[in-house]
Amino acid sequence: MTPISRRAAAVQPFLAMDVMAAAAAKARAGVDVVRMEVGQPSAPAPGPVIAAAQAALATGRIPYTEALGLPALRARIARDYAERHGVAVSPERVVITTGSSAGFVLAFMSLFDSGDRVAVPQPGYPAYRSILTALDLVPAPMVLRAEDRFAPTAALLRETHARAPVAGALVMSPANPSGTVITEAALQDLCAATRNLGLPLISDEIYHGLSYGLPTVTALRFDPDAVVINSFSKYHCMTGWRVGWMVVPEALVRPIERLAQNLYISAPYLSQVGALAAFDATEDLDAVRDGYARNRAILLDALPALGLGRVHPADGAFYLYADVSNLTDDASDFCRRMLDEADVAATPGLDFDPDLGHHHVRFSFAGSEAECREAVSRLKTWLR
Amino acid sequence: MTPISRRAAAVQPFLAMDVMAAAAAKARAGVDVVRMEVGQPSAPAPGPVIAAAQAALATGRIPYTEALGLPALRARIARDYAERHGVAVSPERVVITTGSSAGFVLAFMSLFDSGDRVAVPQPGYPAYRSILTALDLVPAPMVLRAEDRFAPTAALLRETHARAPVAGALVMSPANPSGTVITEAALQDLCAATRNLGLPLISDEIYHGLSYGLPTVTALRFDPDAVVINSFSKYHCMTGWRVGWMVVPEALVRPIERLAQNLYISAPYLSQVGALAAFDATEDLDAVRDGYARNRAILLDALPALGLGRVHPADGAFYLYADVSNLTDDASDFCRRMLDEADVAATPGLDFDPDLGHHHVRFSFAGSEAECREAVSRLKTWLR
Repeated sequence: MTPISRRAAAVQPFLAMDVMAAAAAKARAGVDVVRMEVGQPSAPAPGPVIAAAQAALATGRIPYTEALGLPALRARIARDYAERHGVAVSPERVVITTGSSAGFVLAFMSLFDSGDRVAVPQPGYPAYRSILTALDLVPAPMVLRAEDRFAPTAALLRETHARAPVAGALVMSPANPSGTVITEAALQDLCAATRNLGLPLISDEIYHGLSYGLPTVTALRFDPDAVVINSFSKYHCMTGWRVGWMVVPEALVRPIERLAQNLYISAPYLSQVGALAAFDATEDLDAVRDGYARNRAILLDALPALGLGRVHPADGAFYLYADVSNLTDDASDFCRRMLDEADVAATPGLDFDPDLGHHHVRFSFAGSEAECREAVSRLKTWLR
Repeated sequence: MTPISRRAAAVQPFLAMDVMAAAAAKARAGVDVVRMEVGQPSAPAPGPVIAAAQAALATGRIPYTEALGLPALRARIARDYAERHGVAVSPERVVITTGSSAGFVLAFMSLFDSGDRVAVPQPGYPAYRSILTALDLVPAPMVLRAEDRFAPTAALLRETHARAPVAGALVMSPANPSGTVITEAALQDLCAATRNLGLPLISDEIYHGLSYGLPTVTALRFDPDAVVINSFSKYHCMTGWRVGWMVVPEALVRPIERLAQNLYISAPYLSQVGALAAFDATEDLDAVRDGYARNRAILLDALPALGLGRVHPADGAFYLYADVSNLTDDASDFCRRMLDEADVAATPGLDFDPDLGHHHVRFSFAGSEAECREAVSRLKTWLR
């Protein structure tokens, strides 16, 4: 009889991954499933990335790297902050991680102790909640409202802290699942608020570069001590490579290095080599983003007409978050049936919001235009 | 001012990684350093692994996989347990991990709660202690003795548990840093002891396949509920790929899947594809192991003659653990000077043993024969 820890028992499944497993099983059985469940670009990794990885593979040497990552990659990322954001970041403050997943683990572990409450957006990326729980930390939801564009505000953060003190706060822009971009002014206010409260701010910027109007601004512009988490998975189309980065205040570099040495050894070598080449693919990647903009327009045009509830018009990222309360009180069952009957995979809202998620579904539009059109057509038939 | 958590402050650096960073910096500056600090084969990844990764890269599609890993890889590993160990393992119980590092995190998180004590070998792999600390768990050292071949025993485990109850125990064979292989009879006793005490047993089998006499037997032979951790890094020469696996009891599969979904999403795709091909390279990999055997013989022959203390004759893995108390009371300083003055990198014993490590140094012999001979020559001059 194997005992299961309380913390493991308390971690909820990541439903998008469960839907992915079910959809993959269906696909293996020969069914043509339209995959809108996982936040994964259907575009291939950029040519220079592939070429760099092929060249590294040809040498046969795929070693560990330093725990903080290849120095050249850290330097290249630092340079990007200067060029793209006008923010000075020394390469020493850049930490290469095994995807943003490792970034969250390292940020939470290095900043918080057992029992600490951490403010996180709700709806929000489910791994925030789950990783906090697995580390014996307590997620303190900042409840975002559709009527406020699902945007967190300084006032909401202060309310959350006043209700029960938090040890830090996390914000995300562009957001998952809503796509919401925090405006520059609101981000500045949030940075001032955390600073005034003496709280560390973690800024999840994984969807930076994917925006359809509003600019994506790094929190480092307003708080040089912000802990920034980012990844090559989204804009750079490198999901399965599992490589991302953090920018951290100087005081955190060595504690995070010690944790990373022990918990990860290093991020995958080929992925780090590929990531370095991704900076040479901006033109291709911007073209991929323009494709998302077209997909977004198609879905924003078609879905409401199908009676698929109220669809929040994402500012960025590649998700549409739809309130389907006009169709169901059980979005999980709704998604299961959608996959079974219409061969369209999407993620139930409970992933993102344990309170109101049963009324929501998230559709990823990171696939091709043809897939988007096919999804619309299948849903039209299915919902009839 | 960024707060640093108590748990992060308590995590010790992984000195081998620090030495690696120092040695890499020296190498970048043009110095020819003999690298014996990290447990990393100098042999390239096997040809079939490279070819499989190249073919996958050529498609450009490097996606997330299911959180538990590619089904084909899980099935192949399960088959290997039947073929190599005569143990029936269903593919569902095989979990693909981002290196053994992720295996430890998932095992500890799923089995233990804050404050739990976990028995670990000392000397032992330092990440055991550090990951436990980072997860608010308490390492309970099973103090191994050179006069007992540094082998853990059922009696030692019972003593450790009697001193203060533990919630589980971890054993490793072949061991890092000593190379010690637990005999079949002793492993059977250990499995019986944990079972009688009602404790889960974690068996770190990462150096399986690397043995110079004694057979390497899986704990699953004697305890079908053992949590086995393994990796493609060592025998399969795939360190920087970051891919490993666990075999877990059925009751742990879903809790671990939920944790893995949230903490890792999935192991790197190319690495999983490569790992599948590694099973076609046994002949090449056994040849690499035969090279280690030659290196081991060279070092066991030469090092004692240099006056380099007492060298434990490793049964397996690719390390020699040397008691250098005849030369220094500060092995960290000794290793620093060895790198500075002799351009030979090795790891101070404090990594593996906070109590007696100041008298020990670990040399990895996973490099080439030429490197081993060069190290002997440099050390001969330096120690004179």
